[in-house]
Amino acid sequence: MKIENPNPIEWRFSERASQLQSSFIREILKITQRPEIISFAGGLPSPATFPVEHMKAAFDKVLSTDGKVALQYGPTDGYAPLREWIANSLSTDSCKIAPEQVLMTSGSQQALDLLGKVLIDEGSRVLVETPSYLGALQAFSVYRPEFKSVATDDHGLVPSSIEAVAEGARMLYALPNFQNPTGRSLSVERRVELVETCARLGIPLIEDDPYGSLSYKGEPYPKMLNMNPDGVIYMGSFSKVLTPGIRLGYVVAPLPLVRRLELAKQAADLHTAQLTQMVVYEVVKDGFLDTHIPSIRALYANQCQVMLDAMAEQFPAGVHWTRPEGGMFIWVTLPKHIDAMALLDQALAAKVAFVPGAPFYANDPETNTLRLSFVTVPPERIRDGIAILGKLIAAQM
Amino acid sequence: MKIENPNPIEWRFSERASQLQSSFIREILKITQRPEIISFAGGLPSPATFPVEHMKAAFDKVLSTDGKVALQYGPTDGYAPLREWIANSLSTDSCKIAPEQVLMTSGSQQALDLLGKVLIDEGSRVLVETPSYLGALQAFSVYRPEFKSVATDDHGLVPSSIEAVAEGARMLYALPNFQNPTGRSLSVERRVELVETCARLGIPLIEDDPYGSLSYKGEPYPKMLNMNPDGVIYMGSFSKVLTPGIRLGYVVAPLPLVRRLELAKQAADLHTAQLTQMVVYEVVKDGFLDTHIPSIRALYANQCQVMLDAMAEQFPAGVHWTRPEGGMFIWVTLPKHIDAMALLDQALAAKVAFVPGAPFYANDPETNTLRLSFVTVPPERIRDGIAILGKLIAAQM
Repeated sequence: MKIENPNPIEWRFSERASQLQSSFIREILKITQRPEIISFAGGLPSPATFPVEHMKAAFDKVLSTDGKVALQYGPTDGYAPLREWIANSLSTDSCKIAPEQVLMTSGSQQALDLLGKVLIDEGSRVLVETPSYLGALQAFSVYRPEFKSVATDDHGLVPSSIEAVAEGARMLYALPNFQNPTGRSLSVERRVELVETCARLGIPLIEDDPYGSLSYKGEPYPKMLNMNPDGVIYMGSFSKVLTPGIRLGYVVAPLPLVRRLELAKQAADLHTAQLTQMVVYEVVKDGFLDTHIPSIRALYANQCQVMLDAMAEQFPAGVHWTRPEGGMFIWVTLPKHIDAMALLDQALAAKVAFVPGAPFYANDPETNTLRLSFVTVPPERIRDGIAILGKLIAAQM
Repeated sequence: MKIENPNPIEWRFSERASQLQSSFIREILKITQRPEIISFAGGLPSPATFPVEHMKAAFDKVLSTDGKVALQYGPTDGYAPLREWIANSLSTDSCKIAPEQVLMTSGSQQALDLLGKVLIDEGSRVLVETPSYLGALQAFSVYRPEFKSVATDDHGLVPSSIEAVAEGARMLYALPNFQNPTGRSLSVERRVELVETCARLGIPLIEDDPYGSLSYKGEPYPKMLNMNPDGVIYMGSFSKVLTPGIRLGYVVAPLPLVRRLELAKQAADLHTAQLTQMVVYEVVKDGFLDTHIPSIRALYANQCQVMLDAMAEQFPAGVHWTRPEGGMFIWVTLPKHIDAMALLDQALAAKVAFVPGAPFYANDPETNTLRLSFVTVPPERIRDGIAILGKLIAAQM
């Protein structure tokens, strides 16, 4: 019973909807998932590290013992035992984190969206690293801030450059450990300086930390959260240490803020799946990650070294790159005249993929940069892919 | 290594964050979960209907056969076979729905948030029923619209009253089947008139349909989506027919809109858990719901009748209520002078709970209304609770 001759709708989208752009990475990924392509473009963790059997056993146990609760609506702030586990894991002798400060989210991407929703008005100033994580730029962009870039050098964000752009800033967003996209980490001295600078200027400091425990040497850096729990908002995730497809992350914030974030989450999706939270708690509660994470580290450290060795051998002089101590990414800086976007076209024709660096800049992109991920590609193919890239770059020198 | 004497942050929240209020229902639920309370306040489906064993078997099968894919990042629009199943289930002979029109969401609450994000600017006019679903009012409020209430009578929304408030409206939000909170359903004639009116006026019509298949007689009403697929946005959910705690819903929209919603979802949480979608597809693909839904209907129809019979016996003359043909709710209208919020205090003291009607109104609340849910309370306790409520009301006549 269709109605006759309806008028076509002339869609009027919100102004913020006009800001929406698809992530360049997700667009590239559609191309690069073809098996013949050697893809260094992914930001995905290696499925070889997924503890499928542990997850299966935990789903079975939770559904067998507590299925009706796991499948019912749950509290917006999250499953209490998991929040407590997280609070304990983040506490130090001198800095206790309370479970009430922890809000469970549908992946840490949702924490970025909620932070944008609660902290950003149109035109609000938001400070970001140069370059920064694309998903954060995308999440915050919806709320139409003014991004100001904080300078970065070979050692990461430069705290002394904050004050010049600090006026009225609603937040500073930083990824201090094995940053996506550069793989760089902030030194302890810089962390202290960053926390002190933000505290002095009254700027909430967001510490996004999906990769922190993937330190190849197994010695994680101290968390900025523990240096000033009243001024630092910490974001964590189970995506890189367990599995990403379950969409489970969390944000830890001072109580006035976490209460607002909880209200925003209630309006956004009521709560994150109770079953997933109970299963993750079941998997992690007895220390599984203490043995599991070292196996991820070992895999990634090895493949990172293979890529670094191949680059040293195959890339011409004049090309520079980072040497990550953990995480999933290497950042390459080509001579100024080489455009990474044009190089990508050539590389794809030669069946190699990477992500050009430009989309990671909030302002003034450096078009001669690119990001490489080594975690999902076996060593032999890493060597093949780097050799191909090296030849393409050399041809342009 | 805490820093010394940090300044306390003076939190500056966004203007939209100042709109955020906790759902009154979720606040009441915290009180009423005590076992000694007979609670008609819940909006939760009955856990007796959750197919725990089927879900457990499906998790086991998906993780056993396709675990690495299920646990990896997935596409923003959703798991393709499930989107195709949904498109087929919504198609009729004269109106085919394409899988490309289906976007999977983290519960249908997320669809409400995404629709608000993409369609509402500050001050945009949004048309809603009187009363309307609280979660929708809450989700849209974040984007600071001007709500205009469309008149409702005993047969639901009155289409002829739309034109007076139509100017510049970005959407009309309607819940045509066994509405939350009133339990009312729109007649077929009114549906046609509503669809035609919105099409003529160029207003996108949102058809929110979580309860549609819970018709006690087993004869669902025709969907407005199929009357004008170019002008109607349809929202569905697995919460009421399978289980809510997995947080899985979907929105079906014309392509220009669904593409924007997908971009907004990418920024909001990347995608909804792939594992959950694969499991639900595994459960539903061979027709499980065809036998499962009738068992939910039978349970709810029986408990609804028990409550209606008890009300006829116990409530004094001058009290009116709806007689739902499906769904989970009965709506009670008391004599004008009785304030349902004050009655709730008395009822809680007598260990009975319900939800006062006022929060369901976008404008001009009718304070002598209340919502009762019968689905999670056994018949004997329904009779006890209604008898207590009847006495409390009679005392005020």
